[in-house]
Formats: sequence, C-alpha cells, structure tokens
Amino acid sequence: MAIKVIGFAASTCAQVVLMTLNELGVLYEFEEIAYEDIKKPEYLAKHPFGQVPVLIDDDFQLFESRPMSIYLAKKYQGTKTSTILYPTDDLRKAALVDQFISIEYSNYDVAIKKIAVEEIYTKFNGKTPVQENIIAGREALSKVLDVYEKLLEGKDYLAGDFSLADIFHIPYTYIFYQRNHRDLWDDPKRPNVARWWKNLSGRESWKKILHKYEGKFL
Amino acid sequence: MAIKVIGFAASTCAQVVLMTLNELGVLYEFEEIAYEDIKKPEYLAKHPFGQVPVLIDDDFQLFESRPMSIYLAKKYQGTKTSTILYPTDDLRKAALVDQFISIEYSNYDVAIKKIAVEEIYTKFNGKTPVQENIIAGREALSKVLDVYEKLLEGKDYLAGDFSLADIFHIPYTYIFYQRNHRDLWDDPKRPNVARWWKNLSGRESWKKILHKYEGKFL
Ligand SMILES: N[C@@H](CCC(=O)N[C@@H](CS)C(=O)NCC(=O)O)C(=O)O
Ligand SMILES: N[C@@H](CCC(=O)N[C@@H](CS)C(=O)NCC(=O)O)C(=O)O
Repeated sequence: MAIKVIGFAASTCAQVVLMTLNELGVLYEFEEIAYEDIKKPEYLAKHPFGQVPVLIDDDFQLFESRPMSIYLAKKYQGTKTSTILYPTDDLRKAALVDQFISIEYSNYDVAIKKIAVEEIYTKFNGKTPVQENIIAGREALSKVLDVYEKLLEGKDYLAGDFSLADIFHIPYTYIFYQRNHRDLWDDPKRPNVARWWKNLSGRESWKKILHKYEGKFL
Repeated sequence: MAIKVIGFAASTCAQVVLMTLNELGVLYEFEEIAYEDIKKPEYLAKHPFGQVPVLIDDDFQLFESRPMSIYLAKKYQGTKTSTILYPTDDLRKAALVDQFISIEYSNYDVAIKKIAVEEIYTKFNGKTPVQENIIAGREALSKVLDVYEKLLEGKDYLAGDFSLADIFHIPYTYIFYQRNHRDLWDDPKRPNVARWWKNLSGRESWKKILHKYEGKFL
C-alpha cells in the first residue's frame, strides 16, 4: 500500500514531510483536508489534537511532522536515492542531527513565529499586524541567525552533511524570504547563512513542492 | 573519562538529563554553573545560545536536553540496567516514542509554560503574575490533559512501555503538582492521567534527584 500524507498544502508542517519523501525518492499520495474537518471525530481518531499532518504507511499511523520525517528517513533512506537524512550507523552524527533539529524547534522556529503571528495568522483571526511585534520578531531572528553564522562556518549544512535538521528550516524560511524579510538571510555580515539558504532553497526536492503547491502557500 | 552535565539543579532541562542517566545507571558528574556565567565566551563555546544544559561524554559535546537524552539512551541502555528508554530495534516503536516526545514539546510544554511564565518567571523579572493568564494556562493544560486521558487508556506510559517521552514530562509537572495545581492531574474525570503521574513521580530515578536537589528547585 502506498504512503499517504494528510494535511494542507499550505501547512509548513506537511511540507517538511513531503520534502523528506521527495529526498528519499518515495512515492506518496497527498490528501488535502479541509480546515473545518480537522476537529471532527473521524480526523481526531487519526490525530487526537486535531492538527495536520498525519502519516499513513500501510497499517501504521503517526502524527507530528518531525517524528514522521525521522521514521521515513530511517525506513527508506538509501533504498531509492542515496541521500542519508538521519544517520543510523554513527551515534554522534545522529546526536548532532538531533541537536540541530532541537535548535530549529526551540530557537529558530520560536523567533520566526513571532513574525508569522503578525504577518500570517492575523489574516485568519481578523486582527491587525502590530508593527513593533514584527520588529521584535526580526530582532529575535537576527540574533538566532548571528549564531547560525558561526555554526555554519566551514560547513554547507548544519550537521555537516545535509540532513533532516536542514529540511525542517525550509518552509518557514521560504515564506519570509519571499516576503519582505529576505535581507535577514542575505545580510552581507552573514555569508555562511546566505550560502546555506542558497543550498537549501535550490534542492530539487523543494522545487518540486513549489512547482506543485506554491499557489496554495500562505 | 566520566560523563559530565553542566547546568543548574533548578533547571528542568538539566533534570531530564540527570533522570535519564539515573534510569540508565550511568555515573555522572554534575557541574553547577552560575546564571551569570552562561553568557560568557567560555560557556558560549560549549553552548552557542548560552543555555543549560551541556553534556560532555569523553571528547564529545552536545547541547539541547532532549537530543542528549536520546544519545545517552542509545549509547548506554541495557548496559548497566535493563531499562530501554528509546527503542532501537523496532522502527515503529521508536517512531511512537518520538511522536510523544514531540507532543510533550509542542502541546504539553507549551500549555504548562503559560503557567510558568506567570508563577515562576515573574520571580526573576520583577513582574506581577496576571491571574487571568494563569487561568488561561490552566484551561490550555486541561484540554491537553483531556487528550492525554484518552491516549493513556489501557496504557501505563505514553508509548506503552516507559520511555524518554515520559521522562520529559516530569520536571515541570512536578513543580506545578507541588504548587497549587495538583487538581489538574488528580481530577477524578482523568483516572488514566492520575495513574500515569503516580507511576512517573514514583520512579526511583526521579526520587534520587529530589533527594539531592529539591532544595534548589524553582
Ligand atoms: N507539532 C505539530 C504541529 C502541527 C501544526 O501546528 N499544524 C498546523 C498547521 S502547520 C495545524 O494543524 N493548525 C491547525 C490547528 O492547530 O488548529 C507538527 O509538527 O506536526
Ligand atoms: N531547548 C533547550 C532549552 C534550554 C533552556 O531553556 N534552558 C534554560 C533553563 S531550563 C536556560 O538556560 N535559561 C537561561 C537562558 O535562556 O538565558 C534544551 O532543551 O536544552
């Protein structure tokens, strides 16, 4: 049976799973669900918190985008493409990937969401973006990117080789890079960050997603 | 060389790593660092974001508490005690542990921190707790616990067997259970949650931490 991902194409969380599958060269079916359906009992049986995405791999179901991607990498990497997204034969390398996955979640994502709350979520909740909050979000993200600049010194990717840790950064970065915040990543005082983002946004696995779904993006 | 954890005994993030080490039966040295030292260059070389904890295992260094615990489990589980905290021989079991680790981080921790911001962090930043925010935090946590009640049906632990996913819940839950929010976990309409918390808080590995460090807790 094929792999199925249930979500919204506009969901950054679903996008990371689709990009992981593209990197692995694994075929999948993407089932777009309507926002109003994710709090209904039928869907809650799949995801008890009523969020997207959900992964169905044969008779196995999973929620939470990062664990899904780790599971898919462990299961399929090296079978259809030679890309290794999550090292399984070296404890230290795996720990470094986990470390950067955690940094994305605890630091990068937290900072970028301060901007998202104002510039994206206000579209849905009818509030007006607060300019000072956007500025504060940009400052928080700048500080994180200053650290990334050091972390990426002499490296093309966060953990050395390309990995899930990099993938998890892409969907949100793409949104704000396309909008009016590209200067944060292109800042001449952060050449490593700029190089990193050029590498990430150029991956074929991501371009496939843009090609297919960009019209639906937030 | 011995394993060293650098942190504050009061830090919930350090506590999960110490509890993991206790479960694994691995000896460690805990180095208490002063708050004012974590933004100094010497420490920033160990943790670029200037936070605790940091793990040093021989010539290998790692930051971020959850990845540290996963690394320690993969490396040491089954060697000094028979407890398996992170399954490595069954992809699906591992994925479920990862799923509940992610739920702790994305849902449980987010809700409980709404209370922490008011009742704990205000002690340090000189602000006054806002009662309505505490009530909103309790409501958010109640909703999460209602879902946990279903997730824990017929199970003693989140992923079936005891795992890192459970450990990650303990330090914050302990704080608010001891304070004036114990009714959330002891609510008669949530018998599974109450049983789960009784199981977790009774673990010897946790009692050892209380015995040693409780006086320093937040
Ligand atoms: N930690 C979850 C977060 C899932 C999440 O926030 N999904 C969003 C879309 S990106 C969603 O479903 N939002 C609707 C809602 O929460 O009601 C994951 O990584 O899968
Ligand atoms: N995601 C990190 C969070 C670390 C963290 O927030 N540490 C807190 C103590 S629990 C800290 O160092 N706070 C001081 C600061 O951020 O300045 C982890 O899990 O290790």
